[in-house]
Amino acid sequence: MSLPNAPVERIIRKAGAERVSEDAVEELRSALEELGSEIASDATEVADHAGRNTIKKEDIELATK
Amino acid sequence: MSLPNAPVERIIRKAGAERVSEDAVEELRSALEELGSEIASDATEVADHAGRNTIKKEDIELATK
Repeated sequence: MSLPNAPVERIIRKAGAERVSEDAVEELRSALEELGSEIASDATEVADHAGRNTIKKEDIELATK
Repeated sequence: MSLPNAPVERIIRKAGAERVSEDAVEELRSALEELGSEIASDATEVADHAGRNTIKKEDIELATK
């Protein structure tokens, strides 16, 4: 299941965009999924390094730094 | 409307996490919204600079660079 387009479009409109093309929404959705995967992958390494199988908030925080 | 938690949790599980705490999901959701807002804001500036009111795919691409 990927991120839905509607809230991504909402994010763009909130940034002040008057009009938004559909493929711009798709591009941002795809970019956020990729960034999310990178952060999640780093967080998994960080948790593993700490000897845990559970990803905690602090792992995500560290991974986003 | 913010990003939903379910697909964000799916992204973390795909990265290889065995277990994921609820506040880790919330943290990543929040981080992705913030990143999305920053990218969208840059894309709006880029489109404005090009004399357009419509955000296009190329504006998002440039903003994510």
